[in-house]
Amino acid sequence: MTWNVNADRLWDSLMEMAKVGPGTQGGSRRLALTDEDVAGRNLFRHWAGDAGCALRLDTMGNLFARREGKHPNAAPVLSGSHLDTQPSGGRFDGILGVLGALEVVRSLNDHGVETEAPFEVVVWTNEEGARFPPSMMGSGVFAGILDQTEIYSHTDPDGITVESELHRTGELGKTPCKAFPIKAYYELHIEQGPVLEVENTMIGVVTGGQGLYWKHITLCGQDSHAGTTPMAYRKDALMGASRIITGLREIIHKHSGSVCTVGRLETIPASINTVPGEVFFTVDIRHPDDATLEGIHDQLLGLVDSVCRQEGLSVNFDNTWKTPAVNFHEDCIAKVQRAAQDLGFSHRDIVSGAGHDACHVTHIAPTGMIFIPCENGLSHNEAENTTPEQVAAGADVLLKAVMASSG
Amino acid sequence: MTWNVNADRLWDSLMEMAKVGPGTQGGSRRLALTDEDVAGRNLFRHWAGDAGCALRLDTMGNLFARREGKHPNAAPVLSGSHLDTQPSGGRFDGILGVLGALEVVRSLNDHGVETEAPFEVVVWTNEEGARFPPSMMGSGVFAGILDQTEIYSHTDPDGITVESELHRTGELGKTPCKAFPIKAYYELHIEQGPVLEVENTMIGVVTGGQGLYWKHITLCGQDSHAGTTPMAYRKDALMGASRIITGLREIIHKHSGSVCTVGRLETIPASINTVPGEVFFTVDIRHPDDATLEGIHDQLLGLVDSVCRQEGLSVNFDNTWKTPAVNFHEDCIAKVQRAAQDLGFSHRDIVSGAGHDACHVTHIAPTGMIFIPCENGLSHNEAENTTPEQVAAGADVLLKAVMASSG
Repeated sequence: MTWNVNADRLWDSLMEMAKVGPGTQGGSRRLALTDEDVAGRNLFRHWAGDAGCALRLDTMGNLFARREGKHPNAAPVLSGSHLDTQPSGGRFDGILGVLGALEVVRSLNDHGVETEAPFEVVVWTNEEGARFPPSMMGSGVFAGILDQTEIYSHTDPDGITVESELHRTGELGKTPCKAFPIKAYYELHIEQGPVLEVENTMIGVVTGGQGLYWKHITLCGQDSHAGTTPMAYRKDALMGASRIITGLREIIHKHSGSVCTVGRLETIPASINTVPGEVFFTVDIRHPDDATLEGIHDQLLGLVDSVCRQEGLSVNFDNTWKTPAVNFHEDCIAKVQRAAQDLGFSHRDIVSGAGHDACHVTHIAPTGMIFIPCENGLSHNEAENTTPEQVAAGADVLLKAVMASSG
Repeated sequence: MTWNVNADRLWDSLMEMAKVGPGTQGGSRRLALTDEDVAGRNLFRHWAGDAGCALRLDTMGNLFARREGKHPNAAPVLSGSHLDTQPSGGRFDGILGVLGALEVVRSLNDHGVETEAPFEVVVWTNEEGARFPPSMMGSGVFAGILDQTEIYSHTDPDGITVESELHRTGELGKTPCKAFPIKAYYELHIEQGPVLEVENTMIGVVTGGQGLYWKHITLCGQDSHAGTTPMAYRKDALMGASRIITGLREIIHKHSGSVCTVGRLETIPASINTVPGEVFFTVDIRHPDDATLEGIHDQLLGLVDSVCRQEGLSVNFDNTWKTPAVNFHEDCIAKVQRAAQDLGFSHRDIVSGAGHDACHVTHIAPTGMIFIPCENGLSHNEAENTTPEQVAAGADVLLKAVMASSG
């Protein structure tokens, strides 16, 4: 194979799609199942139709654009992502995965290639979860992880249900939303982190998604006067929280590939001259291996216990939430690796820190993902950016991996 | 001298005063220059009149009740505190200092003692500052530290000025509010901290008031995704703040008698899965010696600088406010010490962590303070408590010190 995708066409399509539901600073605002989202999907329908694809809509609004192969009854190769965005979303998160897969169709057409297996581009409904929780909704129902009846009843902040918006927009299809035999699923995405850019690497070969713990922690000590309470008599909840935050990072540093974040912290009361008797904070810890993640979680509990005993605090844990790690399919990983290698792109294995539709699909089909760098690791932001060269590199790797899987 | 104050009478007066502007949980609510505050002052006027005192009101509403001595032209000995309270105030903070001094008058009367110098009980206006800032207002103008014209224009949350409330309540007196020759000033107060109670000590011989630094600190790093940003690429403002909080305590531990408090901390944004790019927090550091306080402040700046360099953060300092330490008069300190000693009370030197009217008066007259324990160190709270025995011990020490100064 000596030809590539049409880099200009792909970039132009990305820029064209960004104009649908435009943001105020160059990005897009297409919240799931709004008129703007539907306008984006309709633009995709138009392009997919022009490329000769047959469209199919399922009961969750997941949209499939099928290019026939030599064997119509063979399990298809799938590739896609989502077209919905965050409220102030960028031009690439999700969109690249859909339009990259569409570019694969267009390129196969350009060069008159007939694949053995059919190829389908998929647009998953409501990946962002910004309007209706949870995120990765359409792929979650498809993979049998979420229940469609329950999901239909979920509401946006105005109390409007998913089901009524699927009806209103005409996006409630006839095909039952459930998994069918899929030969392989690939998803092209921007990294949404800084690693590839900082390491000057073109392609991230994604080996899986991190397991995740979320916890709410409240420490209780005693409010006291900042001037009249000697250090030895204090029960300072913020001192306890600070020791846990720095101590947790030391634990994390002993486990390669893990990350931890305390993103929210509140002092109660919040007064310059009162020792805070209560502190609430959140913890987010992630690791690509579930057993290691459990080990880190255990060490966090030990740290909290030890700090609380030393500082005279009590603790309350709340809202613990766990998502297991996912491992992509070794065959798909190998095909992405091989494609990057053959195309001469610098590449490295990488674990996805964010959730993606692929993390659901991997439960019902051999799955792989391809990352390309994004500027300053920035995403979920209108300033989200990447380059035409990086976009084309990602799509070329996708094309090669798809062809390798299609036979 | 073989007699004591009348412990029952003093306790009964404290309990009687607490009923004026009652709180909802056993304490009091007499915000400065409200009708409740005036009712408390009128009860004091009634008692002071019954005890034969001549009343004098100055242009800040500071109220003086004078018991004549042998030498009417001699500089008087003064003792007092305040009758206004926090919104949910206790029965002792301030009130003990006023009614303890009144009990000195009553006891001198009981035993027919004529002192050489006159003795005056003073009720300072608006010590709490809870309605009109700043705190210690009446004594501040009296000592020449605050300007009366400027203070008159200060308003409460409803926009009502100090001057108009002095007029409305009839508490604007004719005597100019300014310092006059004072032989000695003593103030009896609950400790408002835990030290005396924990150490089972009856009397705190107050040697001075702590110097104080207040700072607002903002650390700026970079918001980033909790899942996709490896630890090495983070600029985590909360990690920086946590290291400063724990590091500052290590600095403080090297300087005996110093305290530090971070009472308020805010993360921006405040999201469980975003590394916080900005953190705002307050710092309160105190030490009884100004040079040591400056040294601690310098070390804090060095700590912040070093943490920010290591964590990739920038820093902004704001609202730095400094109050110098005050040292009470060695002669007054010695008289309080001697009184406690002679009366057989356990006692220790102590530095006041909170501000008191005495901290202003010390600039224009020889000044000393007497602390007694309070339950769990609790103050500015309706549950504020102490015992009749402790109250009587404090008043006995006050009586002895006043008589020693009166000659």
